Parts: sequence; structure tokens; C-alpha cells
Amino acid sequence: MSDNLATLKTRMAKMIRIGQAAGLVGWDQETYMPPGAANARAEQSAALSEVTHELFVSDETGNLLAKAEADAVGMDDDLDDVRMLKKLRRDFDLQTKLPTELVTEMARHGSLTQELWKKSRANNDYVGFRPALEKMFDLTRQKAECYGYDKVNGHIYDALINEYETGAKQKEIAVMFANMKPGLVELLRKITESKNQVDEAPIHGDFSVAKQRELTLKAVKAIGFDLSRGRQDEAAHPFCANFSRDDVRLTTRYDEKFLQQALYASLHEAGHGMYEQGSPERFEASVLAGGVSLGVHESQSRMWENLVGRSRPFVEWFFPTIKETFPDKFATETPERFYRAVNTVKPSFIRVEADEVTYNLHVLLRFELECALLEGSLSFNDLPETWNAKMQEYLGITPATDAEGCLQDVHWSFGLIGYFPTYSLGNLISTQLFASVRRTLPDLDEQFRRGEFAPLLNWLRENVHGYGSKYLPEEVILKATGEKLTSRYYVDYMTQKYGDIYGV
Amino acid sequence: MSDNLATLKTRMAKMIRIGQAAGLVGWDQETYMPPGAANARAEQSAALSEVTHELFVSDETGNLLAKAEADAVGMDDDLDDVRMLKKLRRDFDLQTKLPTELVTEMARHGSLTQELWKKSRANNDYVGFRPALEKMFDLTRQKAECYGYDKVNGHIYDALINEYETGAKQKEIAVMFANMKPGLVELLRKITESKNQVDEAPIHGDFSVAKQRELTLKAVKAIGFDLSRGRQDEAAHPFCANFSRDDVRLTTRYDEKFLQQALYASLHEAGHGMYEQGSPERFEASVLAGGVSLGVHESQSRMWENLVGRSRPFVEWFFPTIKETFPDKFATETPERFYRAVNTVKPSFIRVEADEVTYNLHVLLRFELECALLEGSLSFNDLPETWNAKMQEYLGITPATDAEGCLQDVHWSFGLIGYFPTYSLGNLISTQLFASVRRTLPDLDEQFRRGEFAPLLNWLRENVHGYGSKYLPEEVILKATGEKLTSRYYVDYMTQKYGDIYGV
Repeated sequence: MSDNLATLKTRMAKMIRIGQAAGLVGWDQETYMPPGAANARAEQSAALSEVTHELFVSDETGNLLAKAEADAVGMDDDLDDVRMLKKLRRDFDLQTKLPTELVTEMARHGSLTQELWKKSRANNDYVGFRPALEKMFDLTRQKAECYGYDKVNGHIYDALINEYETGAKQKEIAVMFANMKPGLVELLRKITESKNQVDEAPIHGDFSVAKQRELTLKAVKAIGFDLSRGRQDEAAHPFCANFSRDDVRLTTRYDEKFLQQALYASLHEAGHGMYEQGSPERFEASVLAGGVSLGVHESQSRMWENLVGRSRPFVEWFFPTIKETFPDKFATETPERFYRAVNTVKPSFIRVEADEVTYNLHVLLRFELECALLEGSLSFNDLPETWNAKMQEYLGITPATDAEGCLQDVHWSFGLIGYFPTYSLGNLISTQLFASVRRTLPDLDEQFRRGEFAPLLNWLRENVHGYGSKYLPEEVILKATGEKLTSRYYVDYMTQKYGDIYGV
Repeated sequence: MSDNLATLKTRMAKMIRIGQAAGLVGWDQETYMPPGAANARAEQSAALSEVTHELFVSDETGNLLAKAEADAVGMDDDLDDVRMLKKLRRDFDLQTKLPTELVTEMARHGSLTQELWKKSRANNDYVGFRPALEKMFDLTRQKAECYGYDKVNGHIYDALINEYETGAKQKEIAVMFANMKPGLVELLRKITESKNQVDEAPIHGDFSVAKQRELTLKAVKAIGFDLSRGRQDEAAHPFCANFSRDDVRLTTRYDEKFLQQALYASLHEAGHGMYEQGSPERFEASVLAGGVSLGVHESQSRMWENLVGRSRPFVEWFFPTIKETFPDKFATETPERFYRAVNTVKPSFIRVEADEVTYNLHVLLRFELECALLEGSLSFNDLPETWNAKMQEYLGITPATDAEGCLQDVHWSFGLIGYFPTYSLGNLISTQLFASVRRTLPDLDEQFRRGEFAPLLNWLRENVHGYGSKYLPEEVILKATGEKLTSRYYVDYMTQKYGDIYGV
């Protein structure tokens, strides 16, 4: 390793460690921060963003990077260090396009708007929220303009989604949805009209928070989430955050009347969490650490939530534990009825609670609205109405309140704009990966029935997690499955599973 | 305000906001951090320390400060800005003496040793802890040498305690203890020999953590701790941390068999917390924000814990709430018996749980050991034995384990060395302040009996909290009480209160 590279790594490690602290500051804001601290927190977040951004985009970093690149000429392209320099170059060229003031302002405004969102959602007050949202979109537009994009054949969205899914394009995403939509709408229609409906009774009832906490911890521990390097807390909107591979925080949300909520949110976030916990130790505090893209990340969460957690074998294995936790409720229930209940397909308002069939339609709606808001073809005044109209069009239901509509998610409030399609990519990737796993581990279902999840986790460690961010998302998919991304496995999975459940 | 001053303030605000984030990172380490994250946390703490230290001791800060000082020549000495420049100058001249590497290394080593301490205390393993402790003292000695001190008439301790109590001297502290010790030892002897002993039964029993949590929250809320700008969590060693005046975190420790522990730790930490919550808004993110010194800080915690919480009027008012929380236990108890029980005087091993009479003897022991370890006249090999010998000498008891002895406190592990005497200063200051309060509010006891604590809190807001760190500790004491610090009120208080309880 050249001296230049060593110095560069030390500098980046410092920046990343401060970034991890910023992550903790954000996690705390969503979990334990007292409400009165919102302004102070915004300033703290802004200061940390400013410092990390300055450390990164400085001439010193640029010079070190250039020298380290020169030292590395002719070296094997697959070496960690060479890949790290490539990633740093991509990130550096992107970040140097952003003025520090814009980064700082986005962090500050995001922290404040996040707090405002909590109140606005609670009070169903879109009008009070609108100016802050509009400003966040405005800042995001500025960010996109700084990044730049193809003004003739491209879309402003390209500049944004590239941050979350390197190289993704608005046009391709639109095509992906266009291909997916008719099939989903058709499947949803058949399911809605099916005579073989699901009884949701097993997941409704009285489920104390304390008992649910116990149950969800058992579940995430069983599938392999390492609680010595992580924990689970409550948040209004479940998420996973990590501040190194050894400090991964899941959050979940309990509904005392509805068991599915916390259990599947926990499995989902644990999927994200195990990806981060599986990042190689040698990548710690470097840009190669952690998940490669939001799409691949979502493939992990959706896999553990749906392909594992909502599978018959998993339910058959976990049902006795559920029954032990809530003996009265489940005295006369069966695993099969529970399995059907957690796979209920029913149009609903909240994306994070949507079933597998309607989920992508929620994402499509959001994608279309984001594009329209960014283009300026939709005004912020008209957002609630347009949201509701699209809900009616795609899902056949209309939110009664904006809290159930365009105020449902925290993401826009802190600037997560232009990444929603990664959720749908995640669904596609998860099924493609799972098909590949099944080729290597043909007795996967039997393993699940015995509560053995280590073989799956080990496969993921080796074929996905262990790469950290060394490769591009498309390279990871190719290495792990031998194919480029395709929607084939997703369509097969959906048709087969829901055909079986609903007899359609 | 001059442009130089404005720029300086912005720079300092950024530094302070990052320092606040570092505070949160430290709080999290003691409350929620998973054990596996210790190494990453050490690196995060080190990076934040490095950045804030660099921001502060830079030429840019020095130049701005010099220019702002020049602009301020001839201005009223009592102006906030003038005082701020004075404090900045003191801090800057001190901090520029420390090399960034030392600051960073202390933060990193402190974070790691803090984790090691948890394990070592749990395993009663002083030998495993010793090398890290020795290194921490060594780093502290280096720090003291950088700060400098009078090598002829002074003591290395002077350089350390000055950080926590500006201008305090080892020699004066030794005199303070020498004056206090005979009286305390004599009082303790009389109490031990008294026929009128206290029955501790009211505070021993079965007290569920959930109920204690409820009770302690009621108590801290009632005395005026603002839960919209703070919260309470659990920690192995209770402490109070704050990241702005609007984000104050109390911690407490529950003992299911012993009610006194959590209740009085909560009142104690709330005393610290209310001091920080009372820091003026106009001082936010400046060096004038927050408590002025550890001694004055401790006067607030000890006042609410002891002068309020362990007073008859407080107990008379709070007893019905305690009874309501634990109806079986307190069915046949009386406020007077509870009052006597929480004022039990009995030599014990753990300082934070010590009664008012033995408390200062714990501090004296620590002060003597710190001095000896820093001087090199006591070896780290001999620490446990010397600790135990002094416990026997001052309190007449010998710890059975090092966990009860020299491993009991977290402080040394992260470099809080040379500040223990501020606890005793705090006791003195608390009684002197309280005597001053009583002159203004002669019906204080009646107010407490009615559960009215706002008049006391308002007095403190006006005469202590509202100054933030604008004045020196001695100035605050003089302003608030009209006198210099004296031990007179403390001696009066102790003699009267314990004379009454024990009939001596």
C-alpha cells in the first residue's frame, strides 16, 4: 500500500467515523430524542454534515486520491484497494459538485422538517407541512442540477436515483413499472374477485407490546440478527440504521390490535441489519463497507420479510412460539390459517403495511408523483388530491385523510427523494437471488421448518454481504445469480404463491 | 457586534454543535449501545474529539479571537460578549497547550477503557483493568504537564482540577478536607453509638422496575424537570448529559429490593438537569451555555437530592404518591419513618449510595488516592489494598471485592481524574445557597409540603442557572449568597439535621 493511499484511508476513516456519529444522531432523533430538542438537533446534524462534506471534498482529499490513483496504475482491477479508489473517485466527483452550503442546508432543513412531519402527520395538517416540503424538493432540485444529467434524453430523476442505485435511469424504471403494472393489476383483480378469500382473524386481537417485543426479538435472533452487535427499538416509521458493522439498530412499530405489523417490520429491518452486520471487517471505516445500493439492500429486507417470513415453512416452524406467547389467542388456530392471514392481499393506504401484490403499485404511485413534482408538472397544492386520485386508480381506494395519504412517510421530509423505485428493484432482486439460493440449497424449505436459517444467511454472507460495496449493484447480482436483473423470477413467484393461496 | 466576533461565534457554534453530538455518542454508549460496538464507538469518539479540538485550537480561531478582543477594548466588562471573549481566551490558552494527538488518544482510550471497566467491574477483575487504568493516568499526567502548574508551590493536581473548577488548588482542597474530616468522623462516631438508631425497613422490599420508573418520573416532573426537553433512561452508573439546553438526559439505576437507589439518583440527576435546562436561550451554542463548574453543578444535584428530597417537608408531600405506587408495602408506614429511613447514616462501600455524613469521606479517600497515583507515590499494584485500608480507616469497613472498592466508579476509566473534590465543594455550596434561598423564601418548608417547588426553582433560575457560564464559580456564589464560599452552613446543616434524627 502506498503512503498516499494509507494517508487517504486515514482521512476517509475519520470522515466515515464522523458520518457514523451523524447516523447515531439521526437514529436518536427517531427513537429517544425529546420533542423540544428539534432545533438543536437540526444544528447538530448540519454541523456534522458540514464537517464530513468539507473533509471529503477538500483539495487535500482530491490530491491524495489523484496520487493514490497514480500509484495504483497497472494493479489488478479486482484488488480491494483498486476498487476502493474507483468508488472514492465516483463519490468524490459527485460530491465535489455539491457546495457545502447546500449540503449543510439540506441536513438542517431535513432535520427540522422531519420533526414538522411528525406533528403534521399527527394533526393531518398537509397545509402546514407544505412549505417545508416544497423547500425540500427545491433543495433536492438544486442538488440534482449540481450533479447534472442528460437534459435531452435524460430526466432530472436520473441525477437523484444515481445516489442510491448507481447508474439507474428514470426511463428504464418507467419501463420496469409499465411491464409490471398490467400483471399486478390483473392479479389483484383476480384475487379481489376470488371466492377463496383469506380470513384475517388470526392476526387481529389483543397483543401486548411487551409480549410482541419478546416475540419479535426471538424472531430476529432466530434468523441470525446478532444482538451483541445490534438492538431493536421503537420508532414511528420502522427503519434500520447502522454506525459500523458492529452497531446495527433495528426499529419497529407495535400495534396492540394487529400482530402482523411489528413482526414483519422486525423481520424486514433485520434483513437490512444482517446485510450490514455481514459487511467484511476489513472494509470497516472505508467506502467499501456496508450495503452496495438501496435496491440490493431492499432485496435483503424483502427476502427475510416475505420470501422467508411469509413462507409456509417459516410459519410452520414459528407458529408454536407465537402460540406460546399468546396462548389464548392461538389455542384453536393453525399454522395454515396464520400463513394465509399474513399473506392477505387487500388494497390499503400505507405502503409499509402493503401486501406483496399491491406493494409495487404504491411505489409506482410515489415514483410518478416524485417525477411530476420535480418536473414542476404537479403543484404542491394539488399533491393530496392527485395522490388520492392515483390511489383510487391503482388500488381502488381513497384515503380519508392526508395522514393516510401523502403524509404517510417520513422520507420526503428529510430529503430522501428519488429513491422509491429501489423498493421495487429490491422485490425483483430478492426473488432472483432466492431462486439462485434454491439451486444451491434445494432443501431450504425443510431447513426453515426446522428453524435453520444459517445456511441461507451463510449463502447471503458469501454471495452478497461479503462484497460490501466493492462491486457495482449489477455486478453483485450477476455474481450471485449468474444473470442480469430480470423480472422473470418475481412474476413466477407472485403468480405461483398467490395463485395457490387464492386459487386463481 | 463586530464582524470578527460574529464569525468567531459561528465557528464556535459549529464546534459546540459537534461537541453536543459527541455528548450524545457518549450518552448512547452508557445507555443503549450494543456491547460489540465498543471499538467502533471509540473511533467515533476520537474522530469527534479530533475535529472539535482542531476547530478550536486552529490559527483561524486564534486570529479571530485576537481581533474580536481588540474590537471589544473599552467595552463594559459585564456584557455577555465581553465575558464570552474572556472565557474563550481562558479556554483557548488552555486548549492550545494540548496536542491534538493527545486529545484524540484520550478520547479513544477513554471510550475503550469505559467498556473494559464494565466487564472488569462485573468480573471483579482489577488486574485485567490495571494496564488500561495506568495508561489513562499516564495520559492524564501528560495532559497536566501540557497545561502546566507551579512546580515549586503547586501540585500536578492543580492543572487538572482547574478544568472542572477554575482556579481551585490542591493545597486549599486539602485544607478544606482537613477542616471537615474531624467533625465528620466525630459525628459519624456519635451516630454509630447513638441509641436512637434508624429503622431502614421502609426502603427495603420488593419494588418493580416499572413502578419505580413511574414513581421517579413523577418526582422529577414535580420538582420541575421539563420532560419535553429531556428524558430519563437507565445506566449502570447514573449520570446526566445534555446536548443543548433543550435536550437533557437523566439516567438512573433501579434496585428491585431497595427503593432509595433510583428515587434519589433521579432527584440528584434532575438537579443537574434543571441547571442545564435553565441555561439562557441566548447563550445556546456558545461557551457561555450551561453550568459554570462541576462544584456549582453538584450544588444543584445535591440540593434537590438532599436538601429538598431528603427533607421532612418533601417526604411528607411525596409519601402519599409513594404509597399509591406501592400500596401493600406502605399500608402501615408513616412519612416520618420513611424520612428517617432515607436519612440512614451507615458506612457503606459505594460513594454514590453514601449518606450525607459519610459522603465526603468517600471523596476525601478518592482525592488522596488520585494525588498519590499522580505523584507516583502509590503504585497501581497497591491501589486496591490502599483503597481498602483507607476505607477501614475512615469508615470502619473493608470492601470484600474490588468491584465494591476501587472498581466502583466509571470516572477514572474515561479520564475524569482530578475532579472528585468538586463533589465536596458541591455539598458546601448547596447548603450556602439554600441558606440564602431561605432568607428570601422563609416559607420554603410549607411550599414543599404543598408540593410547590417552582419558587425554589425560580430562585435558582434567577440566581444561578440564568448566569450560565458567564461568571466565574466564585462570582456566582458571591452574587447568589452575598458571601464567599464557607463551610459554616454545611456544618450547621449537618449538625442540626443529624442531631435531630439520631438525638446526638
